[in-house]
Amino acid sequence: MSNRYRELSVELGERSYPIFIGEGLLGTQDLSAFVSGAQVMIVTNETVAPLYLERAKASFPGKRVDTVVLPDGERFKDWQTLNSIFDGLLEHRHTRKTLLVALGGGVVGDMAGFAAACYQRGVPFIQIPTTLLSQVDSSVGGKTGINHPLGKNMVGAFHQPQAVLIDTASLQTLPAREVSAGLAEVIKYGLIRDQGFLGWLEEHMDALVSLDPEALAEAIFRSCACKAEIVALDEREGGLRAILNLGHTFGHAIETYAGYGNWLHGEAVGTGMLMAAELSALEGMISRDDCDRINRLILRAGLPDKPPVAMTADDFMGLMAVDKKNVDGLLRLVLLRSVGDAVVTAEASPENLALTFARFCSST
Amino acid sequence: MSNRYRELSVELGERSYPIFIGEGLLGTQDLSAFVSGAQVMIVTNETVAPLYLERAKASFPGKRVDTVVLPDGERFKDWQTLNSIFDGLLEHRHTRKTLLVALGGGVVGDMAGFAAACYQRGVPFIQIPTTLLSQVDSSVGGKTGINHPLGKNMVGAFHQPQAVLIDTASLQTLPAREVSAGLAEVIKYGLIRDQGFLGWLEEHMDALVSLDPEALAEAIFRSCACKAEIVALDEREGGLRAILNLGHTFGHAIETYAGYGNWLHGEAVGTGMLMAAELSALEGMISRDDCDRINRLILRAGLPDKPPVAMTADDFMGLMAVDKKNVDGLLRLVLLRSVGDAVVTAEASPENLALTFARFCSST
Repeated sequence: MSNRYRELSVELGERSYPIFIGEGLLGTQDLSAFVSGAQVMIVTNETVAPLYLERAKASFPGKRVDTVVLPDGERFKDWQTLNSIFDGLLEHRHTRKTLLVALGGGVVGDMAGFAAACYQRGVPFIQIPTTLLSQVDSSVGGKTGINHPLGKNMVGAFHQPQAVLIDTASLQTLPAREVSAGLAEVIKYGLIRDQGFLGWLEEHMDALVSLDPEALAEAIFRSCACKAEIVALDEREGGLRAILNLGHTFGHAIETYAGYGNWLHGEAVGTGMLMAAELSALEGMISRDDCDRINRLILRAGLPDKPPVAMTADDFMGLMAVDKKNVDGLLRLVLLRSVGDAVVTAEASPENLALTFARFCSST
Repeated sequence: MSNRYRELSVELGERSYPIFIGEGLLGTQDLSAFVSGAQVMIVTNETVAPLYLERAKASFPGKRVDTVVLPDGERFKDWQTLNSIFDGLLEHRHTRKTLLVALGGGVVGDMAGFAAACYQRGVPFIQIPTTLLSQVDSSVGGKTGINHPLGKNMVGAFHQPQAVLIDTASLQTLPAREVSAGLAEVIKYGLIRDQGFLGWLEEHMDALVSLDPEALAEAIFRSCACKAEIVALDEREGGLRAILNLGHTFGHAIETYAGYGNWLHGEAVGTGMLMAAELSALEGMISRDDCDRINRLILRAGLPDKPPVAMTADDFMGLMAVDKKNVDGLLRLVLLRSVGDAVVTAEASPENLALTFARFCSST
């Protein structure tokens, strides 16, 4: 590894791993040291492959590098597509010593990571996230999985990568809509744990939206540092880690309602965070001004602030009841005790939840 | 739990768990203490359900017990059948606090265990094995998974159960062919690690084949004790645990060749152990007398001592090359340094391997 990057560590004992963040890392770093055998399998998708696959292959000199190119999109985050990774591994006779590489966004990362968790009962893998959302969120922390027709991420594993390589240059090819989706998760870190970062984001949101490299690098570093800290404290989501789900229970309902892939995950989370903020205000935890402040930042990030127009309170309730954040029938939600301090609670009143839906849903 | 049983422990730190072995345990023991939530999902198959499902349900008083009944057979150890378990869990809105129960043989145990490993990224489960093979082997040790068209158990996870409940009475309903298949794995423990047990088996093989309850209970106890010891020393098969695969590399080739389910796993392992013994003799590790001794015991257990009649050396080589015991192209095999002492080696000469195939294959 050269020295033109910043490095973080996710501290998980023998499962600890580094996160490298820098401009132009992909293709200029030798990653062979992470491969214990002779084989590497790069998993990517048809959008990312033409842009970055050759550079990724060049990162493993002296190794036999095979590739699986998946179709692009959340709707392919299913068993059938996952199985095409196993097909590729078995057709090319990859052994337990192989290394998988996830080159792409969150869907590629979740699927390649889950394939690594399951192939021959577990092989190592590296995350090379190429979208803002995956760089600041899904590539760090070891959550992997696929969707089920009855719910998102219902089938999966905790499987930590050997390393995360974040090349900030890859964001320059990212569609604006996906930049916004990633910024939703960036804003989340400020809301749940870092009021100072939220202030920094309010100062630099325009720079971020216009892809200013230095602003992006700083936002990614601070986001990953926050996530790494939370994951180190609670790897398997026994408690604290659940605050990372701010806006996600509402958001998953939106994604499922809209059909996977029609709303981007970050877009749904952005609106979901506004609904969580509204409920927090109704519960008397944050002020109306706090809500307005969050709403402004979400809009400046280019994110929607309302669920799909036809979606009703009943739609939300039906879809949220099966969400896996539930434990024995209690609807657990992440709310804001104050801006910069999240809490997981099953205590929100049904009346305030109904009022939240009433304020966000145009239809009844 | 009452006191009419023997108990063993698999020592794996915070993942340690008990194995209960006794006559008539199923339906007479309260297993609710293993359930942290309110929900239980029993996974079984259409053969086992009429015999034992009601008794299994009665083991969880005060809990909401749902069931998924799978079709019976190794050929259903695939994604589609696995997914029916996820369907059942999601349709009945099981949360992360659910407990899965595997009630049946090795296929049910592997699939229910893998479903538990993956559902919402991991929930607890209990093994209630009802076949001899699953009681002495697959229910202990945490290996779970499904087959892929290109290889057995290629997709799976290490996921330890909370407990294993072995009711020896369930063997009285087991077809003779499946008893024999289980005895193959029983014999294996004697061969790889316990010469004294092998002598005991030679004395009691007739009693075992005729389902003598005391002989069965003793054989199961000693087999589980041996497996528990090996698993405790090497949970994830970094080294020692691989000796449990004696005969399995040859055996998997036979199973794949014959088509899943046409040869029982234990039958293929029985013949595979004879091939491993032959190779061990050719390598000068054990004597011809040792081979004959093992062959006699395999035949007395009612097991085949030859692979399928049309299977050639080339069939074996092609199928063994992709077996997951391989690391970077080297064919690793479990051989017998002496009777009661197995070793994993990649050193067997290709000539002796060819000679082994020549002696066991009728076709060329």
